[in-house]
Amino acid sequence: MSQTIDPADLTARLIRCASVTPEEGGALVLLQEMLERASFDCTRVDRNGIANLFARWGAKDAEKSFGFNGHTDVVPVGNRDDWSVDPFGAEEKDGQLYGRGACDMKSGVAAFVAAAIDFVQTTPPDGAVILTITGDEEGDGVDGTRALLDWMDETGERMRMCLVGEPTCPENFGEMIKIGRRGSLNAFVTVTGTQGHAAYPHRANNPIPAMARLVDRLSNHALDTGTEHFDASTLAVVTLDTGNPATNVIPRQTRATLNIRFNDLHTGRSLKEWLWAEADWVAEEFGVEIGIEVKVSGEAFLTPPGELSAMVARAVEAETGMVPELSTTGGTSDARFVKNHCPVVEFGLVGQTMHQVDERVEIAQIHRLKSVYTRILESYFT
Amino acid sequence: MSQTIDPADLTARLIRCASVTPEEGGALVLLQEMLERASFDCTRVDRNGIANLFARWGAKDAEKSFGFNGHTDVVPVGNRDDWSVDPFGAEEKDGQLYGRGACDMKSGVAAFVAAAIDFVQTTPPDGAVILTITGDEEGDGVDGTRALLDWMDETGERMRMCLVGEPTCPENFGEMIKIGRRGSLNAFVTVTGTQGHAAYPHRANNPIPAMARLVDRLSNHALDTGTEHFDASTLAVVTLDTGNPATNVIPRQTRATLNIRFNDLHTGRSLKEWLWAEADWVAEEFGVEIGIEVKVSGEAFLTPPGELSAMVARAVEAETGMVPELSTTGGTSDARFVKNHCPVVEFGLVGQTMHQVDERVEIAQIHRLKSVYTRILESYFT
Repeated sequence: MSQTIDPADLTARLIRCASVTPEEGGALVLLQEMLERASFDCTRVDRNGIANLFARWGAKDAEKSFGFNGHTDVVPVGNRDDWSVDPFGAEEKDGQLYGRGACDMKSGVAAFVAAAIDFVQTTPPDGAVILTITGDEEGDGVDGTRALLDWMDETGERMRMCLVGEPTCPENFGEMIKIGRRGSLNAFVTVTGTQGHAAYPHRANNPIPAMARLVDRLSNHALDTGTEHFDASTLAVVTLDTGNPATNVIPRQTRATLNIRFNDLHTGRSLKEWLWAEADWVAEEFGVEIGIEVKVSGEAFLTPPGELSAMVARAVEAETGMVPELSTTGGTSDARFVKNHCPVVEFGLVGQTMHQVDERVEIAQIHRLKSVYTRILESYFT
Repeated sequence: MSQTIDPADLTARLIRCASVTPEEGGALVLLQEMLERASFDCTRVDRNGIANLFARWGAKDAEKSFGFNGHTDVVPVGNRDDWSVDPFGAEEKDGQLYGRGACDMKSGVAAFVAAAIDFVQTTPPDGAVILTITGDEEGDGVDGTRALLDWMDETGERMRMCLVGEPTCPENFGEMIKIGRRGSLNAFVTVTGTQGHAAYPHRANNPIPAMARLVDRLSNHALDTGTEHFDASTLAVVTLDTGNPATNVIPRQTRATLNIRFNDLHTGRSLKEWLWAEADWVAEEFGVEIGIEVKVSGEAFLTPPGELSAMVARAVEAETGMVPELSTTGGTSDARFVKNHCPVVEFGLVGQTMHQVDERVEIAQIHRLKSVYTRILESYFT
């Protein structure tokens, strides 16, 4: 049985599933039914209440296998009154499809599901097409793509290459492929001194000057100037908080949070060690205690330009006429997990309205994205 | 009619008046009745809902006039369950009298009221004895002693010298007279930059590094090393607050509050100008906007050692055997207003439990304080 899937229609059906993390919302159920009708072998790989879908067409032990990765969960709508449309209504207006997830990334999932189904139905390949779709990318990500990859490792499922369908284009469709991402960590700093009366600072030990010195030192240190494929690493102190309402009291403790986006010259561990050394220096200088809790969201990673990125770039150029930039900019995505499994790049729509009120996508672009994905599959299997 | 007032009994009666600022609580009414019975000419000088009492014995145009200043209002009791006694019960235990205001400063008011009444009754002086008692020292102080002094200026009332009966002794009764106080100001600093995503700090302008630099500079600047009668000026940054919960967002604004205690080398204005110059330098260096709102609580002031302090010191030594230190330490008091009217010093009890739970005063000390005040009156008028 052959079918032609309309990826814009599928995007609309997915938007109507209110799959705010961690709710499955019917999105994966809908995709599973559709994929099973097209002879994909589907498995729900749920973990700790998070729904995930694995789908494979073709043999498990096929020599060639191409994978797609994406997510159907979406961020909350925020203040619903700020929306001009129902966030889960999938309204069409002026060639745009509106709704939470329209851009990030139900359209991307719809495009690769549609491309995969039509491809295997019309020109059955000598190999496997694998789809890994999670319900937890916008949340902690602990039980999402990681759960799928863990399960694949345990059961011997294997993608040889993978494309993540996240929005990657800043302004024009076709202008950017992501071949890696900077790493990201948050550090939570607590400086503790001795409380006292503001009129007698010598009897207290104010933690605030020590914090100011530490923040000044960290903020003025250039981590690097970038590498071949990466921008310079950045450090931003995002909040300083003491919460002392009394102007005549020197506080005991003050806190700061900082965020570091780092390239392949650093690791979470090397940055932790640098932060701790800076803190030790200031703690000794000021006679205070400094604690730093570091949470690494993801290490920097890179799929160096090669076969996969060249293939994706050719497909993009053929469809759009643009030569896409191979970039490592932007925040984190599940590619940071997939890169431990196989070479991975990311290509998708223009991401301008992601996470915003009145999130929307140009309907024509969804069709073009399906075409790019189809060209990639054709290229990989011939 | 002659009478002998027991200052401890009067303290207890005042404690039973729940005169938490701005409540009069019956305290001034009680004193006025007592003073009028002793032929003091009393006037309530209320302003904006704050009760104040002016009392004069003797002629308005007398060449010699000695004044006392004090307050009957008290700070709140805080958590009543933390008290072992009724804060307004005036319980006696082990020679101590307990209650809110026992120490700060219903005992001081009771001692000078008792001394003044007994003095004018037993040895009527050739001159005037003036009492200025306010119900707003613990609050803003705008309509308290200032209202009394304004009214005195308008009506031609005049103290030639004044003693403020605040607690002045750190540990032992008799060890310290205050002849001035450092000034105090609070500065509220706001640094404003441009909000943005933590992954792209170059598109934002984080106000936090600028704040850190400013706080570092201010905290490391020694304002002075002290003067003949004053300790070194001090600066304490008491709070830093941003309130940004999002680790991936660079905030638009961050705030700090600092408190400066300053000696007679500075004025509120000179410090304001210094703060603004520092802020301008940092604002230009970092391309941010810095606003500083300065509130001067009181300028530094000094009644240089002389006739008044020598007289008070002799009375203290005669009563206690201790040679009191002439000090300018401590927080602000209403002496900062009185100093514009006439020479003023402060002498009172040990202040250890002021503003605390289970505030209390040694009963024997109240009697000795009355004796010191009596000796001062005798010394002044002979």
